[in-house]
Amino acid sequence: MANPSLLILAGDGIGPEVMAEVKKIIGWFGTRRGVTFDVSEDLVGGCAYDAHGTPLTDATMAKAQEVDAVLLGAVGGPKYDSLDFSVKPERGLLRLRKEMDLYANLRPAQCFDALADFSSLKKDVVAGLDIMIVRELTSGVYFGEPRGIFTEGNERVGINTQRYTESEIARVSRSAFELARKRNNKVCSMEKANVMESGVLWRQVVQEVHDREYPDVELSHMYADAGAMQLTRWPKQFDVIVTDNLFGDLLSDLAAMLTGSLGMLPSASLGAPMANGRPKALYEPVHGSAPDIAGQGKANPIACILSFAMALRYSFDMGEDATRVEKAVEKVLADGLRTADLMGPEGGSPVSTSAMGDAIIAAL
Amino acid sequence: MANPSLLILAGDGIGPEVMAEVKKIIGWFGTRRGVTFDVSEDLVGGCAYDAHGTPLTDATMAKAQEVDAVLLGAVGGPKYDSLDFSVKPERGLLRLRKEMDLYANLRPAQCFDALADFSSLKKDVVAGLDIMIVRELTSGVYFGEPRGIFTEGNERVGINTQRYTESEIARVSRSAFELARKRNNKVCSMEKANVMESGVLWRQVVQEVHDREYPDVELSHMYADAGAMQLTRWPKQFDVIVTDNLFGDLLSDLAAMLTGSLGMLPSASLGAPMANGRPKALYEPVHGSAPDIAGQGKANPIACILSFAMALRYSFDMGEDATRVEKAVEKVLADGLRTADLMGPEGGSPVSTSAMGDAIIAAL
Ligand SMILES: CC(C)[C@H](C(=O)O)[C@@H](O)C(=O)O
Ligand SMILES: CC(C)[C@H](C(=O)O)[C@@H](O)C(=O)O
Repeated sequence: MANPSLLILAGDGIGPEVMAEVKKIIGWFGTRRGVTFDVSEDLVGGCAYDAHGTPLTDATMAKAQEVDAVLLGAVGGPKYDSLDFSVKPERGLLRLRKEMDLYANLRPAQCFDALADFSSLKKDVVAGLDIMIVRELTSGVYFGEPRGIFTEGNERVGINTQRYTESEIARVSRSAFELARKRNNKVCSMEKANVMESGVLWRQVVQEVHDREYPDVELSHMYADAGAMQLTRWPKQFDVIVTDNLFGDLLSDLAAMLTGSLGMLPSASLGAPMANGRPKALYEPVHGSAPDIAGQGKANPIACILSFAMALRYSFDMGEDATRVEKAVEKVLADGLRTADLMGPEGGSPVSTSAMGDAIIAAL
Repeated sequence: MANPSLLILAGDGIGPEVMAEVKKIIGWFGTRRGVTFDVSEDLVGGCAYDAHGTPLTDATMAKAQEVDAVLLGAVGGPKYDSLDFSVKPERGLLRLRKEMDLYANLRPAQCFDALADFSSLKKDVVAGLDIMIVRELTSGVYFGEPRGIFTEGNERVGINTQRYTESEIARVSRSAFELARKRNNKVCSMEKANVMESGVLWRQVVQEVHDREYPDVELSHMYADAGAMQLTRWPKQFDVIVTDNLFGDLLSDLAAMLTGSLGMLPSASLGAPMANGRPKALYEPVHGSAPDIAGQGKANPIACILSFAMALRYSFDMGEDATRVEKAVEKVLADGLRTADLMGPEGGSPVSTSAMGDAIIAAL
């Protein structure tokens, strides 16, 4: 059988630094576990724009369609702020999501025991927190047409379109119900059905899929504003949350921040199964490109490493190896190793990006 | 000169209970301060639907246009969940906002010293917090056309339109800059300009208004997802936040929850000046109709009372009287009075809605 294939798109800012540590782990799997990945690398985001005048070339896009999984670092930076909307670094990432049809974005918000003190929330509110946000990633206001800035009379008008079809809602809700069955069997769906018709349809379709296919899962509905409140008040009431692209963007960032461990949180973006049975997949840390600390060896590689662990689990059916990587991360944290982002106000001496990566390999 | 006029729309759930306490305060102003308000009352929301088959009659709408200020309690309840979208209780509130053209929704998120322990956030993160969220309230995805649920091929499609004109963005940003000048002179504007063209225009127009009319105010821009994170991480970095209708809905609820005092937070919705120089105005608590505790005398009337204080300040130029009401609220809290929603896990004996109202009057 062919080796599993990976396309690495390290991107901008701290992307290349944190991805370097993932490459060490991939190497470890080759030498120590006899699992060799065929790895290719390419550009996305600002660095692709610098090289080719576009944040994602057609050639890179084609490669992404062929591999078993894409690993992405981060895109963007102030250098590109003044670029035209259509060639901004983010467009590269959005094109990957859309053309690979990665409709289910899995964003676990987990609080690591060793870091519970680090949250801005009280320890009892977040200790042991483990929720999964499933965000729709290929539709909604991110992609709806018409869109743009137009002139009407003598003024400009900015327009975007929130648009969801029944089948788009149904397939992502199935992802949420499937995940819930392997967790605590609870799904909370969030929208603004009191204000938006697209939310009315969202709520209806999620309920229909539930009643028809997943009656054993406990389903509730919440308005997204109340959801933001409840996540802040008592996040442990949730197991799996399913929501649309835009609400998911805000709510998953909020949930990530609850844990106090933004530099720690991975994500998986999954599409339909390919011919080989594996889902189309892209894995990336939740954090951004952090241009302020790029190139200084300060970045925390854990979110990117845990994204690779998600790849092991969801793309390569290597759940035990995924757990092994996760346990290694927990071990180095319990041992007290901290990158700069994990320093509390009391200070301490942070380790570098590569020292953190090495320690995780040693713990493997 | 004619007495200042008020239209009270107590609405559903706990609305009438909390409004009853405001009426006592209005009475106190008549007898003790010689300020008599002409008060009329009417229906909005579910109760209006029950009586008239619509959540807001044209007659009530017309009255709202004529008075100096509207005081609203809350709308909605599970009883009305299955109603058609067009007659849901919320449509009454949204019609008031739209037809009165109340474009600037002021939502202070303040942490009361006596309640800082009550937040799910650490005390040092929220103690002394005092930020003002200015939410655009008459446009965006709440009102944009086309909207609805349509059939395409053999499936349903839900559509809403996010739409902002230059002048809509400019006027609400002016409200934010004006407020900032009276506070700490800082405005942070939030959108998703990296993903939505309407956000690109939002950012441009806010910047232009700033550069042309308010160069003395410190202005920054943040993506709304990062905004949700930063509000959770260290809310005290903000002074005034200006954002659109939908982001404002989520972010202001999040900010309210940070303070741990949801039952405490008021809001003002302001439009353009009327012939008498007063702005069109509606005041309402941030909390909802809380049907689970309605009619039991358990609700906290403070948010509604503080909304009346905002009316004194923004509609009637009675800033000192507003402060007097706010100080009375602080005093009863410092004295240890708590309604049921303000009970910590240690328990205690809560006071009733009306006992809280009476205590505030005594403190006046
Ligand atoms: C970078 C940006 C386009 C992206 C988004 O808005 O989806 C990011 O915030 C995310 O959540 O992955
Ligand atoms: C009741 C509802 C229509 C309303 C909104 O979404 O604006 C509420 O959540 C608010 O924030 O005032």
